Amino acid sequence: MNKAVVVFSGGQDSTTCLLWAMEEFDEVETVTFLYGQRHKSEVDCATKIANDLGVKQKIIQMDVLNQLTSNALTRSDMQIEAEEGSVPNTFVEGRNHIFLSFAAIYAKSIGAKAIITGVSETDFSGYPDCRDAFIRSLNTTLNLAMDYTFDLITPLMWKDKAEVWKLADQMGRLEYVRDNTLTCYNGVIADGCLECPACKLRNDGLAKYLQGQHAS
Amino acid sequence: MNKAVVVFSGGQDSTTCLLWAMEEFDEVETVTFLYGQRHKSEVDCATKIANDLGVKQKIIQMDVLNQLTSNALTRSDMQIEAEEGSVPNTFVEGRNHIFLSFAAIYAKSIGAKAIITGVSETDFSGYPDCRDAFIRSLNTTLNLAMDYTFDLITPLMWKDKAEVWKLADQMGRLEYVRDNTLTCYNGVIADGCLECPACKLRNDGLAKYLQGQHAS
Repeated sequence: MNKAVVVFSGGQDSTTCLLWAMEEFDEVETVTFLYGQRHKSEVDCATKIANDLGVKQKIIQMDVLNQLTSNALTRSDMQIEAEEGSVPNTFVEGRNHIFLSFAAIYAKSIGAKAIITGVSETDFSGYPDCRDAFIRSLNTTLNLAMDYTFDLITPLMWKDKAEVWKLADQMGRLEYVRDNTLTCYNGVIADGCLECPACKLRNDGLAKYLQGQHAS
Repeated sequence: MNKAVVVFSGGQDSTTCLLWAMEEFDEVETVTFLYGQRHKSEVDCATKIANDLGVKQKIIQMDVLNQLTSNALTRSDMQIEAEEGSVPNTFVEGRNHIFLSFAAIYAKSIGAKAIITGVSETDFSGYPDCRDAFIRSLNTTLNLAMDYTFDLITPLMWKDKAEVWKLADQMGRLEYVRDNTLTCYNGVIADGCLECPACKLRNDGLAKYLQGQHAS
């Protein structure tokens, strides 16, 4: 049985990864991390997509992060979205490291070896724990930590936003991703508020991809 | 400023590490992880030692672990003590990996590079995330995750229990460690209940060390 766990936020990137995983694996589950005072709409969006697609969603409360740091990630007046775009104004150190580590513990507990995450080096963020070298090192560390052979997979690592839209389109799911995912810092689903940095990145990428399609 | 964070449970091993760190570093803080329904006496013991020694203790609630697994570690009827000894009857996968990762996030937040943990390959447990190869790999992963140069230090990695007692004695603190630390599965401080596997390992090690002293 070919089983995968997708780290899933309900954004464009992780939803594209989820759709990709559903094509590549026999069985797919999602893990969604909750923390701080972020938009409840974001979680609702992730849950709706998981239900739509018929995949199990494991929600993990990560309030423990609040014990370590106080910063933009857990303050409603300074929203940031690591996965979906823009250089962040601040970050919780090692947050992605922690999330992937918990995803791995969960994956092993359900007998999955593949862990899929939508991180990218290309144009999304400056987080060091989203880089390829980190992911490869973490893979080895997790294998040693749990005496297991994990496979951390990053389908978007070298893609820009236009290429992420292309991947969704190749799976015939561009409209689904466009209409159902939440990227916007202001919590507006689909094309979003059109003004925040995350919307700008997402919509510029979409325009670039559609333009390329049109031209060819 | 030479600053270190010690992962600290109030047991023999981590207390010996703390005393060692206080000799080696200008400034030392401790991090204690709480989870499940373990002996409250254990935490009280750790706090008392931190106060005795005049070091700051950061307590981190790790109930998040209960969301992932249900096993002996969080059930009061099946106590285990990873740090202090015996092959565990069961374990939370990757628990030490998670603890060290949180300790690292905390360390960076206070400007410390050294993280000290009392894990050992010698005679304590079968946890894969206490082995030297894992610790080295995690060190690299954490450096990449947070763009920082951590130094994970394991003073007890190759020591058996008698040698851990020896280290305490060399620092002139054998009696302190013997009288104030909690290793016992039944929550009895100092020499403990004398019957559980952790007490047996601890007291056999002490007997072995004292015998060697006597012989020489």
